[in-house]
Amino acid sequence: MLALTLTDGQLALNTNYPQPTPGPGEALLKIRQAGICGTDLALTAGYKGGFSGVLGHEYVADVVAAPGNEHWVGQRVVGEINTVCGTCDHCRRGLRTHCQNRRVLGILNWDGAFAEYLVTPVYLLHAVPDAVSDDMAVFTEPLAAAYAALRDVPAGVGERVIIFGDGRLGQLIALVFQSEGYQPLLIGHHPDKLALAAQAGVQTALQAPVGQEFDIAVDVTGSASALQEIFSVLRPRGALILKTTSAYPTTLDMSPIVVNEWQLIGSRCGPFERALEAMASGRIDPRPLISARYPLAQALQAFEQARQRTSLKIILEP
Amino acid sequence: MLALTLTDGQLALNTNYPQPTPGPGEALLKIRQAGICGTDLALTAGYKGGFSGVLGHEYVADVVAAPGNEHWVGQRVVGEINTVCGTCDHCRRGLRTHCQNRRVLGILNWDGAFAEYLVTPVYLLHAVPDAVSDDMAVFTEPLAAAYAALRDVPAGVGERVIIFGDGRLGQLIALVFQSEGYQPLLIGHHPDKLALAAQAGVQTALQAPVGQEFDIAVDVTGSASALQEIFSVLRPRGALILKTTSAYPTTLDMSPIVVNEWQLIGSRCGPFERALEAMASGRIDPRPLISARYPLAQALQAFEQARQRTSLKIILEP
Repeated sequence: MLALTLTDGQLALNTNYPQPTPGPGEALLKIRQAGICGTDLALTAGYKGGFSGVLGHEYVADVVAAPGNEHWVGQRVVGEINTVCGTCDHCRRGLRTHCQNRRVLGILNWDGAFAEYLVTPVYLLHAVPDAVSDDMAVFTEPLAAAYAALRDVPAGVGERVIIFGDGRLGQLIALVFQSEGYQPLLIGHHPDKLALAAQAGVQTALQAPVGQEFDIAVDVTGSASALQEIFSVLRPRGALILKTTSAYPTTLDMSPIVVNEWQLIGSRCGPFERALEAMASGRIDPRPLISARYPLAQALQAFEQARQRTSLKIILEP
Repeated sequence: MLALTLTDGQLALNTNYPQPTPGPGEALLKIRQAGICGTDLALTAGYKGGFSGVLGHEYVADVVAAPGNEHWVGQRVVGEINTVCGTCDHCRRGLRTHCQNRRVLGILNWDGAFAEYLVTPVYLLHAVPDAVSDDMAVFTEPLAAAYAALRDVPAGVGERVIIFGDGRLGQLIALVFQSEGYQPLLIGHHPDKLALAAQAGVQTALQAPVGQEFDIAVDVTGSASALQEIFSVLRPRGALILKTTSAYPTTLDMSPIVVNEWQLIGSRCGPFERALEAMASGRIDPRPLISARYPLAQALQAFEQARQRTSLKIILEP
């Protein structure tokens, strides 16, 4: 089958990659669409010491086989990405997305979705409601990660939200907070991306307002300068949600965290049900974030465009 | 009066420092005892850009005058340290210890307790119960800061607690968690200090146990190596309480915070009422932490001993 693989940091289009075979408890999926994510770009730059295999972990697909779970066959699905062993200390404590033996679709020891077919454990699957089109469903994984930012805000911390980073995930996080009644301020360096957020009714600015304070900050940049800007507007005892794993600074003076009694909260994967429901009900429509779509056969060109700072979501279609 | 002052980073004993006069809403206190704190040592090393004035913010004293609040006169008291304006944005939002115009006893623009007399706003005072001796009461401020560590643990995060730092505050934090039914493990580099904690029933070790995970970590070291050790034993979605303001590292890779979805929580001042009640009821007895006591006239020698790594609490008596 056709598949985009990463080997020793090199992306390559394989026309003869072996089609995977589902074992018990697994499903064979035929990919409809897959999205390119910041993590994919980071992996091609060597993040996590170099994943080898088929990239891709944002997808919508059809189930074509599911040995022992035939009721899944024919269903249109999206899927979570962390496989679990169910027996390690973390699994037993309910920290399943932190399974000590986990493999992660397209990220860690498990082939991903930039291919014609994908095999996944069925326990990761979610059926896609009819009201959610393929163009929306392919956003389920990153939209769930955006809902994680909302979920991870400590109770009672306040309502004034500022989000740093106008890329794919920052835009989704702004939509999530807005759909929940907040009036988030989105900070970014790209006027065209900010204009897109503004079209969805989100307040935007090129930099944090001087002399104004916020209860909640969300960082989706991973940049040291953004953190300094956040530190200048976060109120004492405010919460800072950290969403970017790949490029956080290695230099940070932590003493302002103590002096201001801030809460810094790392936030990763999120609830698929909530993302699907938000799109099915029409509360969130991520489709304006699609910058371009490519056939999988042109995946290398698609990655080139995805790396450009003007790009938002790039879709691959096998 | 006799007072220990800091001027341009130089400690000096003044025999002729002017005795302060209380204004309306203020009280004149005669100091019984005052304790030397890590912040005092940091201030003499230039922390906060150099405070000038009388040092000292841990004290027990007698009220000798309180114009307009005469019911305070004759009472034995301890006092909080952050003065507030009551009108700034932070005060109006209930963030009084973060008042934007605050002055802090012995730390920022307000003369402290290493003197015969101290003036303080009466709203900072707490009467000391008879069951709390002077030797205990002088610990109220740091014990309250220890209770802040407990208060700032997110609800439901778990029960396995590890505390890094066997100094004054680390020991108090261990006692607080222990008195609340936790079984904290105290990590430190000083066998004699660990032995003191062990005498109070606290589990201790020279380094974090390999292969064991904790739900809650408290850092009272401010050292980069301790943070690395904490990162190796904190479970995913665990909480790290940061207690040290003066010496946190300027280099830290933040990506593990996101990958492990940790919560880092800065924690500063705490509830005086709770500290006084714990000592009055006998649940916590901080007196074994007193390493030495000096008359105020020998404050310079007292600071020398306080700087030694073997010292715990050093008491000054005017």
